[in-house]
Amino acid sequence: MSISPPLARPDAKRELEEGEAFTPRFDANGLIVCVTTDASSGDVLMVAYMNAEALERTLATGIAHYWSRSRNALWRKGDTSGRVQRVIGVYVDCDQDALLLKVEVGGDGKTCHTGRRSCFYRQVAGKGAGRRLAHARENGT
Amino acid sequence: MSISPPLARPDAKRELEEGEAFTPRFDANGLIVCVTTDASSGDVLMVAYMNAEALERTLATGIAHYWSRSRNALWRKGDTSGRVQRVIGVYVDCDQDALLLKVEVGGDGKTCHTGRRSCFYRQVAGKGAGRRLAHARENGT
Repeated sequence: MSISPPLARPDAKRELEEGEAFTPRFDANGLIVCVTTDASSGDVLMVAYMNAEALERTLATGIAHYWSRSRNALWRKGDTSGRVQRVIGVYVDCDQDALLLKVEVGGDGKTCHTGRRSCFYRQVAGKGAGRRLAHARENGT
Repeated sequence: MSISPPLARPDAKRELEEGEAFTPRFDANGLIVCVTTDASSGDVLMVAYMNAEALERTLATGIAHYWSRSRNALWRKGDTSGRVQRVIGVYVDCDQDALLLKVEVGGDGKTCHTGRRSCFYRQVAGKGAGRRLAHARENGT
């Protein structure tokens, strides 16, 4: 039994940031945030969360799995819509508390449940009281 | 005083997803996740969090502000390093619980405190027991 928690070790920060060990840091709810981008365009498609099982299934199958916080359920993206995400690459950030997935989207290529290619289809526009959301132009829709 | 909370209204989901009102949904800790990308290359640079004040300052000044969860402090990115992020565009996702910032990075252009242009400099490689992090090749470094 160790006296210090792992992150208190002098070399732990360096290992976390520079090492080869993949040690994702899940939050208090057992989740890690994941940014998913289109592997060819680089566009940010969505932000979602994974628990350990979703991450493991993603890595084992090469198909993106997430944890749905609203449904409290493991979620193989595209199961009902056919918009399955084939994983091209999985990246982790410096302190290993965020993931980046580069994917190819199957089916009609629309990632968002609203029918857009990306969930980020609105841009904040205007100033002060005139601030509002403007629908951004999308490629391919 | 309303009987139903706003999200229970039949039109609330549609307004949240399709409307022009910017109503960011902060979590139980008062934070919203933010993905920051390089406005010209589209590369994902970092994932961070904003509280209401950080978001307001970002929108008011055009310079990215975040909330540091480790330091529990408002954080004007680049204040000490000179790597200030000039905001080109702010986007919100379908259910308004994630932000996307497109920025130009000042100074030497390195976003990560480790000296990389992006915090996502390692890729998960290998299978099973051989799984490890491989340092990804970076442009411009």
